[in-house]
Amino acid sequence: MSKRLTGGITAPKGFLAAGIHAGIKRTEQLDLALVASEIPGPIAGVFTKNTIPAAPIMLNRQHLKKGIGQALIINSGNANAFTGTEGLEHARETVHLVSEHLAIPKHRVFVSSTGVIGVPLPMPALRKGIPVLTAQLRKTGHRDAAQAIMTTDTRPKTIAVQQRIGGKVVTIGGMAKGSGMIHPDMATMLAYLTTDAVIDQKILQKLLRTVADQTFNCISVDGETSTNDTVLCLANGMAGNRTIPPAGVAHTQFQKLLHEVCHYLAMEICHDGEGATKLIEIHVTEAASHKAARQFAYTLATSPLVKTAIFGADPNWGRIIAALGRAGYPLRPDRIVIAFNQTTIVKDGRGLGPRIEQQVQKIMQRPSFTISIALGMGKGTATQWTTDLTYDYVKINASYRS
Amino acid sequence: MSKRLTGGITAPKGFLAAGIHAGIKRTEQLDLALVASEIPGPIAGVFTKNTIPAAPIMLNRQHLKKGIGQALIINSGNANAFTGTEGLEHARETVHLVSEHLAIPKHRVFVSSTGVIGVPLPMPALRKGIPVLTAQLRKTGHRDAAQAIMTTDTRPKTIAVQQRIGGKVVTIGGMAKGSGMIHPDMATMLAYLTTDAVIDQKILQKLLRTVADQTFNCISVDGETSTNDTVLCLANGMAGNRTIPPAGVAHTQFQKLLHEVCHYLAMEICHDGEGATKLIEIHVTEAASHKAARQFAYTLATSPLVKTAIFGADPNWGRIIAALGRAGYPLRPDRIVIAFNQTTIVKDGRGLGPRIEQQVQKIMQRPSFTISIALGMGKGTATQWTTDLTYDYVKINASYRS
Repeated sequence: MSKRLTGGITAPKGFLAAGIHAGIKRTEQLDLALVASEIPGPIAGVFTKNTIPAAPIMLNRQHLKKGIGQALIINSGNANAFTGTEGLEHARETVHLVSEHLAIPKHRVFVSSTGVIGVPLPMPALRKGIPVLTAQLRKTGHRDAAQAIMTTDTRPKTIAVQQRIGGKVVTIGGMAKGSGMIHPDMATMLAYLTTDAVIDQKILQKLLRTVADQTFNCISVDGETSTNDTVLCLANGMAGNRTIPPAGVAHTQFQKLLHEVCHYLAMEICHDGEGATKLIEIHVTEAASHKAARQFAYTLATSPLVKTAIFGADPNWGRIIAALGRAGYPLRPDRIVIAFNQTTIVKDGRGLGPRIEQQVQKIMQRPSFTISIALGMGKGTATQWTTDLTYDYVKINASYRS
Repeated sequence: MSKRLTGGITAPKGFLAAGIHAGIKRTEQLDLALVASEIPGPIAGVFTKNTIPAAPIMLNRQHLKKGIGQALIINSGNANAFTGTEGLEHARETVHLVSEHLAIPKHRVFVSSTGVIGVPLPMPALRKGIPVLTAQLRKTGHRDAAQAIMTTDTRPKTIAVQQRIGGKVVTIGGMAKGSGMIHPDMATMLAYLTTDAVIDQKILQKLLRTVADQTFNCISVDGETSTNDTVLCLANGMAGNRTIPPAGVAHTQFQKLLHEVCHYLAMEICHDGEGATKLIEIHVTEAASHKAARQFAYTLATSPLVKTAIFGADPNWGRIIAALGRAGYPLRPDRIVIAFNQTTIVKDGRGLGPRIEQQVQKIMQRPSFTISIALGMGKGTATQWTTDLTYDYVKINASYRS
């Protein structure tokens, strides 16, 4: 069994962090974070599928080809996206500054930016800030780092877990940011994972891809996919365990531990969704295929009418039916079963009446609940997490930049 | 040139209408409408692509095989959707009652329902209401009919136009309802068109499909596709024109007239979008293909972040870039040009600065404007209309049924 720790991103052996106000944000909030390992190690990454990726994404993809990492530099307040060749130069200079001050090769530095699109990165702030930041690297810097990567987030999101794997205690730490533009396929969502496990880069990359698909890629606040989404996992091997094998017990144990960290951070992001008051799990079963199940779950998770009904605690299951019907896969209406938590509201092609609806209304008033949809078409299943659509979502996003 | 008339759906020769409160809605509002022609004629229809269509849709698809229509019966307050075999029986009985009281064959009657999903149609109200309704059919009934098909609409939507075609004055009338669940591929959107033109059913069906694709299928309020969407066009031939040919001048004239009616009703629906304060035309040009252009326009029209920025009059073009980037088609960022009305805000891969943004902010405060996106990738173009996402959209939909 895994054990929860404090210490976040610096909980694994050999990791340090720092966060400062460099002057990228107009306010006095922290806006520049650094995470570094004492020694280099394999790094894995998954990035946005947006076809207009931000400059840091392009640079990280290059660096990931070598597969060795040692430092993660992240700024908030500016996305360095749609900034052309100048933006790429700025990302390169940021990496250069960190590599110089830490005395490590440039390809071991990974860079991320989050914030407003289309504004040049204020390089004077970074040139001044990076020396300060590297000087502040310390074991207790995880809190400042988690704070410094926030944009519209209402709170920092961190976790650390550990478990005995391959003969040694292995620790995974993580931090994330994100509350708007949250969507499958990576939304303005940044997540950084550190571990002291001994693991091969290819195995780490494959595991990260799998786990990200089951966690970060299954949350949706508003159906938007950002230009900057990034998940990076850096492993420095300082736990001294027998290397994680490509399969078997230790592999499964490590995958579960990684899943625990990613699931926690994904739920934290979802819970902190812009204006959200409720966290909903949508569970689709008995679809004709996994792909169909995912499409049904996705359509429900992004339906404005379903999400406003959740906000209003209105057991208006007709909106669920209508959304299922536009998902683009065949359905047999008479086979659909819909339940809120354990309470079935639709069965045999009809609603089960006002008394049941009153019960469901009470469930819908809770801060979190599950909507289960069984389709009677096959064995495909999918789970997706979403939030309600509220006045505050509109408020936050009608005035984000002012 | 076409001429606008009053008279709506009963403006063409030989059409009558009526609307009453039959008791389907809980309030005293009108909820049952009838449109009838003195003589039968060819009828064309396009219906929702939702895979769980409402009972009336299934029945209309059957009747459309004969292609002859004479009466349209429409209720609001209840969608007769997801009501199983009982729902189909209710739709059949409704048709039967109309056919009996008008003394016409059943297959000439087309039935529509709009309102809450999953509740059985209150047949006693229809049994009592239909005899009253048929007795009230009259030339001036178009206003009541347009009123009786409304749900969350804030106003009735009607139009009538006429023009000399094929040697005679031809008139087309129309009425529509819809303000939520508005989306390409037909949303809870009902539109009825009447004309006294002489036209073959196959030509009418083809024209209606083409024109609906350019109008009703290009509007989006919230990305939802309803179970009940319907557009029907009934032509009784009483204008006595030379029959509309499959191509040529008279064909083009009639298509333009039909387009004028459908475009007007589509804009009315969009303008009356739930909570909407602004009507936006999104115009995509220079895409690699028509399909790509349509996908880009659609992605922008349904983006919550773009729609909230429009509500807040925030010239945050980064959200447009991010939305384009997740549309799933290749892009060259350095070629994208974005303009609000005539004012270019993005060009050569970068924003044109704060002064331009201030000008665009002023444009965005207007009740309607155009966002033009040129992609520099080819010759594909598409136009889509959408609204802003507002507090009131959330308010209306968080409490629709209460």
